[in-house]
Amino acid sequence: MRHTKVKDLLNSSTTLQEINAKGWVRTFRNNQFIALNDGSTINNIQCVVDFENTSDEILKRITTGAAVSVTGDLVESKGAGQKYEIQVKKLEILGDSDAEKFPMQPKKHSLEFLRENAHLRVRTNAFGAIMRVRSVLSYAVHSYFQQKGFVYVNTPIITGADAEGAGEMFQVTSLPLDNLPKNEEGDIDYKKDFFGKHTNLTVSGQLEGETFAMALGQIYTFGPTFRAENSNTSRHLAEFWMIEPEVAFNDLNDNMDLAEDFIRYVIKYTMEKCPEDLKFLEGRLLEEEKTKPQAERSEMTLLEKLNFVLENNFKRVSYTEAIDILRDSTPNKKKKFQYIINEWGADLQSEHERFLVEKHFKSPVILFDYPANIKAFYMRLNEDGKTVRAMDILFPGIGEIVGGSQREERFDVLVEKMKALGIDEEELWWYLDTRRFGSSVHSGFGLGFERLVLFVTGMTNIRDVIPFPRTPQNADF
Amino acid sequence: MRHTKVKDLLNSSTTLQEINAKGWVRTFRNNQFIALNDGSTINNIQCVVDFENTSDEILKRITTGAAVSVTGDLVESKGAGQKYEIQVKKLEILGDSDAEKFPMQPKKHSLEFLRENAHLRVRTNAFGAIMRVRSVLSYAVHSYFQQKGFVYVNTPIITGADAEGAGEMFQVTSLPLDNLPKNEEGDIDYKKDFFGKHTNLTVSGQLEGETFAMALGQIYTFGPTFRAENSNTSRHLAEFWMIEPEVAFNDLNDNMDLAEDFIRYVIKYTMEKCPEDLKFLEGRLLEEEKTKPQAERSEMTLLEKLNFVLENNFKRVSYTEAIDILRDSTPNKKKKFQYIINEWGADLQSEHERFLVEKHFKSPVILFDYPANIKAFYMRLNEDGKTVRAMDILFPGIGEIVGGSQREERFDVLVEKMKALGIDEEELWWYLDTRRFGSSVHSGFGLGFERLVLFVTGMTNIRDVIPFPRTPQNADF
Repeated sequence: MRHTKVKDLLNSSTTLQEINAKGWVRTFRNNQFIALNDGSTINNIQCVVDFENTSDEILKRITTGAAVSVTGDLVESKGAGQKYEIQVKKLEILGDSDAEKFPMQPKKHSLEFLRENAHLRVRTNAFGAIMRVRSVLSYAVHSYFQQKGFVYVNTPIITGADAEGAGEMFQVTSLPLDNLPKNEEGDIDYKKDFFGKHTNLTVSGQLEGETFAMALGQIYTFGPTFRAENSNTSRHLAEFWMIEPEVAFNDLNDNMDLAEDFIRYVIKYTMEKCPEDLKFLEGRLLEEEKTKPQAERSEMTLLEKLNFVLENNFKRVSYTEAIDILRDSTPNKKKKFQYIINEWGADLQSEHERFLVEKHFKSPVILFDYPANIKAFYMRLNEDGKTVRAMDILFPGIGEIVGGSQREERFDVLVEKMKALGIDEEELWWYLDTRRFGSSVHSGFGLGFERLVLFVTGMTNIRDVIPFPRTPQNADF
Repeated sequence: MRHTKVKDLLNSSTTLQEINAKGWVRTFRNNQFIALNDGSTINNIQCVVDFENTSDEILKRITTGAAVSVTGDLVESKGAGQKYEIQVKKLEILGDSDAEKFPMQPKKHSLEFLRENAHLRVRTNAFGAIMRVRSVLSYAVHSYFQQKGFVYVNTPIITGADAEGAGEMFQVTSLPLDNLPKNEEGDIDYKKDFFGKHTNLTVSGQLEGETFAMALGQIYTFGPTFRAENSNTSRHLAEFWMIEPEVAFNDLNDNMDLAEDFIRYVIKYTMEKCPEDLKFLEGRLLEEEKTKPQAERSEMTLLEKLNFVLENNFKRVSYTEAIDILRDSTPNKKKKFQYIINEWGADLQSEHERFLVEKHFKSPVILFDYPANIKAFYMRLNEDGKTVRAMDILFPGIGEIVGGSQREERFDVLVEKMKALGIDEEELWWYLDTRRFGSSVHSGFGLGFERLVLFVTGMTNIRDVIPFPRTPQNADF
């Protein structure tokens, strides 16, 4: 007999005879009531066991975490809190779960403990909800771009290019580290490595993505990227998923419009598809905030924050304006900032970004036109000769969620910039080809997917929104 | 003025005044007719230049590969072959392309030459079509699973587990190879590596995927996987994208049903969304086949092959039946096979798979119930004690496109198998937890995405269906 998903049973329009459900026991009360979950929804279905006609041996095996198959009728529930329940006629234990040993007890566990059990934490309400929301958000990303005619491009993960400059890279090798081949000069002989050269894990698919945008017009990537940086913070992962659209003929304003429209679409889509998971996560966040001092609590609930983003345009503020605001701000004058803003050209720290977003504008902010010397080589130089058409989108509680720019389309200007920064032209010959042949204005951005998931789920540690987080000293599972 | 995509102009329901298009010149004929492409479609739009009122200096710069902006009216075309064309009133050269130097000349290039120019080959008709089809196929994958309530799971790319056994792995490290830290025993001190241990690139997300299936019910992965194997063939990549669904409570038959239904859905979806690209690729394949001896040519065109898959069930054949067929086959008796099939237990080679699919059944084939000792440790042992519930799906021209199995859900049987194979239980403690707590029947499979793209596009070398192929001695771009 084919089993029916719990979600479909709970959403049934009628009572049903002789159905089968399979799932895992969340709780078993009064020797009679199983709360059964199969992951299709955050909601459990109540299964009423005929305990008088069920052997003690079986009843004892109905423990939290056990896999069971129940056959019976879907009937209207007499209890409160659910429309339907299953009147069980036949119960089968598919897989036992030793109540003493099963780590996911029906009680509150710390997030740290759950991280150490990343293979089991998804059996909890919170992590089931987070992972379903993450999945729906992913699909929203694809839906948005595909509907608009963007082409999904899988840029390479293993790259021979060292020059992207977005961060420290992991090396990839098939050489035996305990017996490295050497060349005549006594150096490691990378000609003997798998790819015949030194290779790394990508930090960004942007440069390869640009070559495709200059042929297909509108493209996006959505894949894993890597940073070998020893950042043990709640906002950094060594392995994370990034979304990078790149559009021919778009200037920086088009780029900002795209980013805003995109973010609104994926949030709206997810709110429509995951109302129950988000409601649960909103409640979880409220509980968490109760443990904080009043001043640190959010003024808005999770759903209010999401609606705020849907209903309000992001503030677009030039770097120069932002510096003026920061210089005149109370925390700057009172020297509350760790890094005091004295003059134009300063790189903004997290504390400054948070002040702008959370205190001053109380809204997502797009900062643009940054000083050239604090941004990457490929960004379009403005006519002022000192700023570039860069943009960062800053979100409350998250900080930078998007970094993008209009790209330098002028061959000569780009080469000059590369020379000044010591970036090897030979190595990026293929990238320069996009400016040699049929170059044009184009723009793109990168959005760290996990930061988006953080925002939408209301979680506060990035380790909790990816299935198996990779961080310094941690690659378990 | 906002430009309109070429695809939208060609699909316009009326003529239009004052439109703007931007794209790249494919050809320029008679000093008058630009074939303009912007990547939104395989079709070019004809732009008629008023050459009498355009300076020679500009006309000379309208070369293959140049980026141009044309403003004018969309009018009915007087020429054959297109409904509409653009009567150009204003033409702007956005980016020049030196006709002498631009590698993508308007002529036929060899696939080898195009691979060396992977950053530019997407500006050709064939590679534009392949990459659009690849993108739509990707989306079909997500659509299928999301509609059915599967949760998309990003299993880790960097893994500390060596035990998956699916193939040779690449090592990932942040240690300086020219100055490796050593421990007291004189061995490399991996405690000083980024993750505090030896790490590799994943060969499969299956084991992690299973842990999520045992909580969320139905999950799928779709991400990059890696093999450090020196296989320089037209069917192997060192970096490729894999789709791995895993479903709780599914047995091997359910698994076969899922794989067939899935493959049909994604092919049908792509045929509906990409008729023009597929028609072009069908023509390309016909041309390519003309260069082959008659006997090697396909009996069906590309679209006929795709329709065949939609309309015919895959043949389901046990390994034991397959061995009987092969043993009695003409090539076996006449010793035409390189590896003669003598007895039950032999591992099937590509030549045998091709015989079954292309000569004997003339249909996609699902082989199942393989000998346990030629398959992976996690596959469900049958009651006969010598075969496992494995399945491989074999496609004409491609060979193995899917490998899957029902998983061994019995803790004791699994541990015994691991011991026999010398797989460390300690290392896979988390995987074994799925069998310790609430275990149940479950199944899944892996589908190599590029092999699917090969089949759908009719291309014959896997390097031609991924943007930037990674193969032995090659990690360019």
